[in-house]
Amino acid sequence: KINPDRLWDSLMEMAQIGPGIAGGNNRQTVTDEDAEGRKLFQDWCEAAGGTMGVDTMGTMFMRFEGTDPDALPVYVGSHLDTQPTGGKYDGVLGVLAGLEIIRSLRDLGIKTRRPIVVVNWTNEEGTRFAPAMLASGVFAGVLEQDWAYDRRDAKGLRFGDELERIGWKGDEPVGKREMHAFFELHIEQGPILEAEGKDVGVVTHGQGLRWVECTITGKGQHTGSTPMPMRRNAGRGLAQVTELVHEIAMKYQPNSVGAIGQIDVTPNSRNIIPEKVVFTIDFRSHILPVLEAMATELRTVAPKLCADLGLEFHSEVIGFFDPPAFDPVLVDRVRNAAERLGYSHMNIISGAGHDACWINRLFPTTMIMCPCVDGLSHNEAEEISKDWAAAGTEVLMHAVLETAEI
Amino acid sequence: KINPDRLWDSLMEMAQIGPGIAGGNNRQTVTDEDAEGRKLFQDWCEAAGGTMGVDTMGTMFMRFEGTDPDALPVYVGSHLDTQPTGGKYDGVLGVLAGLEIIRSLRDLGIKTRRPIVVVNWTNEEGTRFAPAMLASGVFAGVLEQDWAYDRRDAKGLRFGDELERIGWKGDEPVGKREMHAFFELHIEQGPILEAEGKDVGVVTHGQGLRWVECTITGKGQHTGSTPMPMRRNAGRGLAQVTELVHEIAMKYQPNSVGAIGQIDVTPNSRNIIPEKVVFTIDFRSHILPVLEAMATELRTVAPKLCADLGLEFHSEVIGFFDPPAFDPVLVDRVRNAAERLGYSHMNIISGAGHDACWINRLFPTTMIMCPCVDGLSHNEAEEISKDWAAAGTEVLMHAVLETAEI
Ligand SMILES: NC(=O)NCCC(=O)O
Ligand SMILES: NC(=O)NCCC(=O)O
Repeated sequence: KINPDRLWDSLMEMAQIGPGIAGGNNRQTVTDEDAEGRKLFQDWCEAAGGTMGVDTMGTMFMRFEGTDPDALPVYVGSHLDTQPTGGKYDGVLGVLAGLEIIRSLRDLGIKTRRPIVVVNWTNEEGTRFAPAMLASGVFAGVLEQDWAYDRRDAKGLRFGDELERIGWKGDEPVGKREMHAFFELHIEQGPILEAEGKDVGVVTHGQGLRWVECTITGKGQHTGSTPMPMRRNAGRGLAQVTELVHEIAMKYQPNSVGAIGQIDVTPNSRNIIPEKVVFTIDFRSHILPVLEAMATELRTVAPKLCADLGLEFHSEVIGFFDPPAFDPVLVDRVRNAAERLGYSHMNIISGAGHDACWINRLFPTTMIMCPCVDGLSHNEAEEISKDWAAAGTEVLMHAVLETAEI
Repeated sequence: KINPDRLWDSLMEMAQIGPGIAGGNNRQTVTDEDAEGRKLFQDWCEAAGGTMGVDTMGTMFMRFEGTDPDALPVYVGSHLDTQPTGGKYDGVLGVLAGLEIIRSLRDLGIKTRRPIVVVNWTNEEGTRFAPAMLASGVFAGVLEQDWAYDRRDAKGLRFGDELERIGWKGDEPVGKREMHAFFELHIEQGPILEAEGKDVGVVTHGQGLRWVECTITGKGQHTGSTPMPMRRNAGRGLAQVTELVHEIAMKYQPNSVGAIGQIDVTPNSRNIIPEKVVFTIDFRSHILPVLEAMATELRTVAPKLCADLGLEFHSEVIGFFDPPAFDPVLVDRVRNAAERLGYSHMNIISGAGHDACWINRLFPTTMIMCPCVDGLSHNEAEEISKDWAAAGTEVLMHAVLETAEI
């Protein structure tokens, strides 16, 4: 049994750092607020007997010894960074649930054989610096560290410079750790568990993702004195590609989603026809051929739509991962723990990307999900109940205990 | 005869203030660069014997006496502010042509009976603070000064505060001046004169305008884990309204234009479905009923399109003027001057809005246009030839001389 009140109080205390404007959080990666949140987490862990390692991507590894210092540790964690208009639980629950397990084991006087390491991965959200899951991607060897350092935010600041500036670029080389297993508890960020009335989601697979950054170029001319037939309006390209993305995503229902979240118009003046529109498409599916078919159809059709409007279309994949299937042994352990503890549960596919998707390529990995109200996430109004948080954390603890061996 | 080289040199010297990034200008209204441009113009005018009046909207009136100090003056001018990615001639030509006339009259030792006042209207462009032609609109009594002061830029700064900050809020009450006539020379900002091979456009009418600011509201949710049927994607509303605007504008060809120039997406994150999109539609026609029909069709159809997508649509007219017909006597004077001077000319409708459109409501007003390369304007690559500038300025001088009486 964990202590639900202590877990909840820690969630609420963390949420005071980088508050949003509507009850949620704006604690974006490698900002001053991120640094403050990291420090609080470090203090909590050290008070619970942990020792810290920080790698050169800023990922925090808080190690709690077991009885066998030579055994490969079990890793548990998620991320403390948030969206610019994010909730209090997305990522944070998975990190603080790891801490709550450690605190509960101390209360109960239980020592596992294997060490337990609670992780806070840097830049999971990918809003300020695309792509998402940046540090775990470098850890997994899928992304290059130097390339990651060179990612720039909207102001042109480099990720590597900002990481150094906030004082969290560590010494440890990235990806040198070996894990016996990795567990990530996360809120569902979708409506299924709540609709089905289940306490716990046993995550068997995840959706893969393609982020396609598109640039449509036309001609920036006066909106009043340029005759209609002479226009090359990049905004019309955006309009047609927006609807194309929707049609593509609707083709493979219910196995696909797609939308454009971010749009930047140049010069963005009321009386200038848009010269250039840059935007990112987010395509996802848990079926790899579907994901690939969506990206292919975009690449084939969008340039033609744009050419018909006198526009140029250019696209580049700036974020990607293939659909992960999680480790069957760990998945069973999660299901059995839920069953044993008497929580209602169901198998579920993760709609969002998570650090666990990258770590799954290296080591046995799985995830646990807890419901969230209305499926709402990436929104300051994101909400969960204390009971849901407690149920997910207890299932996590039992699966971790079985894996770390008492 | 004016001095084409002096006029051109002044244009080029002014263009050095607030340079753009691609050979044009970024000297937006009531910025430090605007203040610097105003000071240069003031110095030039005072060196040519002018005395300055500045009204509480920051409009500069440089007065050059004639032989009869009690006669109503003839006003000539345009604006020195530019688009964020603007050209070197849009507005500036009309102001510096006024100055060139004064300089030429001094060279020639000619004194008119009526005083001549060269005007620089504040915030013609309306990009930083909508609507366009803000100061002339207050002068004409169509807009309220307090309302104008309250306009805010994208950073939330108030127009009134910024005008004060740059030191150009004058003492003179707005709209207290009487004019015998007002002349505005401007580049065409469209392709017609160049295509027709004409030196001078005799402007008989202007297009009217409606700027409709629209807000579409949906729900900001996770792009990965929100099933397609649950989405309320404000970006799809933008897409469908973009195409609607195009269809509406195509209905009344060649008497109408329409486009969306400015778009702001909230929260504008790659993995959040757009919660809110705010954008401005620019509709224009020189036929009032067409202009009104376009705005009405938008108001009728757009809310339905959005409702079908589960979105809310709200719109507000933030800029407007009805199509002006310029003073027939002055129009004839311009045509006769062009004829007399041997320049090829044609009647033309102004596609863009100009301060002359507002002043036309109060006093006899007209405009003269000169061609610009490729019809390109509101673009740093905007270009005209020295000959075109000289032809327009000479026609302006002759029409002004006839009106100010030698
Ligand atoms: N969990 C989460 O929102 N991660 C960010 C990456 C994604 O968009 O799926
Ligand atoms: N001339 C000009 O571009 N004025 C700005 C107002 C408009 O958009 O027409």
